[in-house]
Amino acid sequence: MYSLEELNKLYDNKFSGENFKAEPAGLYDPVRHIMSNTGKKIRPMLLLMSCDMFGGDVHQALDSAFAIEVFHNFTLVHDDIMDAAELRRGNPAVHIKFGVNKGILAGDVMLSYAYQYLCSLQADKLAPVLQVFNQTAIEIMEGQQMDIDFEKRTEVTAGEYLKMIEYKTSVLLAAALKIGAIIAGADEQSRDLVYSFGLKLGLSFQITDDLLDTFGDGSKVGKKIGGDILNNKKTLLLITALNKASHAQRDQLFLLMNEQNEDKKIAETIRIFDQLNIRNLIENKAEELFAEALQSLDSIQIPDSQKSSLKDLAYKIRNRDY
Amino acid sequence: MYSLEELNKLYDNKFSGENFKAEPAGLYDPVRHIMSNTGKKIRPMLLLMSCDMFGGDVHQALDSAFAIEVFHNFTLVHDDIMDAAELRRGNPAVHIKFGVNKGILAGDVMLSYAYQYLCSLQADKLAPVLQVFNQTAIEIMEGQQMDIDFEKRTEVTAGEYLKMIEYKTSVLLAAALKIGAIIAGADEQSRDLVYSFGLKLGLSFQITDDLLDTFGDGSKVGKKIGGDILNNKKTLLLITALNKASHAQRDQLFLLMNEQNEDKKIAETIRIFDQLNIRNLIENKAEELFAEALQSLDSIQIPDSQKSSLKDLAYKIRNRDY
Repeated sequence: MYSLEELNKLYDNKFSGENFKAEPAGLYDPVRHIMSNTGKKIRPMLLLMSCDMFGGDVHQALDSAFAIEVFHNFTLVHDDIMDAAELRRGNPAVHIKFGVNKGILAGDVMLSYAYQYLCSLQADKLAPVLQVFNQTAIEIMEGQQMDIDFEKRTEVTAGEYLKMIEYKTSVLLAAALKIGAIIAGADEQSRDLVYSFGLKLGLSFQITDDLLDTFGDGSKVGKKIGGDILNNKKTLLLITALNKASHAQRDQLFLLMNEQNEDKKIAETIRIFDQLNIRNLIENKAEELFAEALQSLDSIQIPDSQKSSLKDLAYKIRNRDY
Repeated sequence: MYSLEELNKLYDNKFSGENFKAEPAGLYDPVRHIMSNTGKKIRPMLLLMSCDMFGGDVHQALDSAFAIEVFHNFTLVHDDIMDAAELRRGNPAVHIKFGVNKGILAGDVMLSYAYQYLCSLQADKLAPVLQVFNQTAIEIMEGQQMDIDFEKRTEVTAGEYLKMIEYKTSVLLAAALKIGAIIAGADEQSRDLVYSFGLKLGLSFQITDDLLDTFGDGSKVGKKIGGDILNNKKTLLLITALNKASHAQRDQLFLLMNEQNEDKKIAETIRIFDQLNIRNLIENKAEELFAEALQSLDSIQIPDSQKSSLKDLAYKIRNRDY
């Protein structure tokens, strides 16, 4: 089996020089801009690790791993337009550097390339992989729409929020793992279990992200703490707080949503969160989901030794403070 | 074999009630808006007619025909954003009615659905169909970028213009025909010939479109004549005129590009076109491409009787004055 470092090297050897086409430069320069700084490559690594865990040939999975990464970056390009985000991984977002029209078209062509890279699979693997991929793509777009819809609503239920982050974030991690399993020829039950592992891990990951946004150490997280509070984001923290709050606390939380003094808004909201024990409650929820993820991984009928890389990565994701 | 009317009925029976998902409505309402008014359905009909011509089962091709139509409408939604177009088939463009963000996301999900409909094909057909489809999608996006690039350039060669309309318009007609042939199990040579037929027919179609924009009858074409001239569009008419013009005529054509009086701008430009015999030259070019298209169709090794539907449609497209 391969270490994470070895998989990274295999992947980079094949794709770090991937430059797409030269022309038309107006189409491919924006693609090169976002793809030249691909971040942590969690999704392609999950795909390769899953393939490796199930005894598959990771070389046969490389193109699909890249497809997942290209797809992920397509979603970032279009989401950044919709969210009017200016920065992505410390660089100007594509639509800021190249304009909205080029951002739209670059995203479109990246989605098409994602499919093209998937299509290098053998015919017997192609159909089941595409089925997972199509469903995932559609769910991610539904999740993005839910996220946009929730911004305009006063209240969102915990169930709605969890469904939204499942679609917007988790399903792609889960799909990467399942596609790796399909390429390796794993049986149906194993595919579903590794998907479930990814889904729960992704939820736990996103909820931890929300926790860090409010309770993290700004110097480690790399951004100002309290952004979600400032934006009145209906995260699980706020939803849980509104559910548990007294009438007076509820009124105060809603008043704070219109507070103009940013430092006061953050500090007062956190004070109410602390009164309601929100940090502990949400940490427990993240821990519960993490345990469910591990349970799915444990249930897969292969030797534990083959699961150690994925398990290590899962713990690394759980224990992060950034 | 089926008549065009029968194919239309088969298609409508299956898809005229296609409503996509109810929720999230913010995502699917825009999709329903554009898909409820799908226009002439030329592309899906070409796919079905090609499948039928090669003796395939058109029922097996219906989902792919719909995929092509969903894909085509996705390109319209995103192109209308990029071109800041306000109307589409007499209705408000998606981004006008629902906003740019919903237009982007609706287009994205339509592209994903196009792939999902293709994926109902049997495994042995899926790979070759996707290969054609992916390449076509990428070329269409490259064509759209060329079109945008050409707007900012002073001059464009005839070769560049023809490549742009080939990518932006023709390849999808050609791909529809080729996918129909693949589903029918036609041999490689026949697939290529029917593709070539569609490519040339599409070029002839687009050039005729450009002719009608300048020399058509406004009441039949359904829009104000001279739009391309007003927008300084580098169509084959203008490109050919600039190539054939004397120094004085060239200078005048460039001066007219900055003329503010719209009626004068159109009339004077057409006067120079007439001096240079542009209408005839371009009609000849369209006719030449149409003849090449028919030649490809004629070369396909199946009985002529099976080609009559496609040939009729080709003539109908050639002889239109709207």
